[in-house]
Amino acid sequence: MAKSADTQATLLEQVVFNDQGLVPVVAQSAATGRVLMLAWMNRDALALTLDSGDATYWSRSRQELWVKGETSGNRQTVKSVSVDCDGDSILLQVDQQGPACHTGLDSCFDTASVEIEQAESNSGEGSSNA
Amino acid sequence: MAKSADTQATLLEQVVFNDQGLVPVVAQSAATGRVLMLAWMNRDALALTLDSGDATYWSRSRQELWVKGETSGNRQTVKSVSVDCDGDSILLQVDQQGPACHTGLDSCFDTASVEIEQAESNSGEGSSNA
Repeated sequence: MAKSADTQATLLEQVVFNDQGLVPVVAQSAATGRVLMLAWMNRDALALTLDSGDATYWSRSRQELWVKGETSGNRQTVKSVSVDCDGDSILLQVDQQGPACHTGLDSCFDTASVEIEQAESNSGEGSSNA
Repeated sequence: MAKSADTQATLLEQVVFNDQGLVPVVAQSAATGRVLMLAWMNRDALALTLDSGDATYWSRSRQELWVKGETSGNRQTVKSVSVDCDGDSILLQVDQQGPACHTGLDSCFDTASVEIEQAESNSGEGSSNA
């Protein structure tokens, strides 16, 4: 059972949904600290998440509510919901079952990555670049 | 100095900007694993970030490029840039100088949080709720 209805209502009031009625939501693994995915919630999805403890998003492609893992089994059990200082983004701490990404990767951010080497002015490490 | 121009160009090509030319960007502390903030980049902001190694966003309120920490000194030195499986969100690993949030808090998500207690069906822990 989720926290008291009062606390949920307070949180819901703090969220600023965009002109499509959506807010971006970051899911972070409570176990590993890895950022797993970014998805979107409308007010109903957030209310359902707070009430059920199962991460529930709004699918922009299918235009429907989407309980994460409902078909794949890779559910996200939500441990906490945080709203940022402007109210226009949300962070979930989750217990992720299986891979978070539909590609089978642990995180949706495992697909493509670039490491940045700092310019000499920002780094104490020597660089052989002339 | 950032990675080769080829690698940057490949990453830039993978990003799907929304109809306002923006993509949501999550900044995570490389040191602590904490999610610090969610902000937005346009293509120029992403290119500048890749090139300079200083996290550079698009301010939706001021409608201008915004080098994080340029006025506050609380810069974000970017260690890596990852694009998600759909190309429509970005994750930065950053070295954050000072607090990330304009409120003075370490993370923008430190403002408001609700912990979720799981229903008995999802938890091995007993609940006294009838």
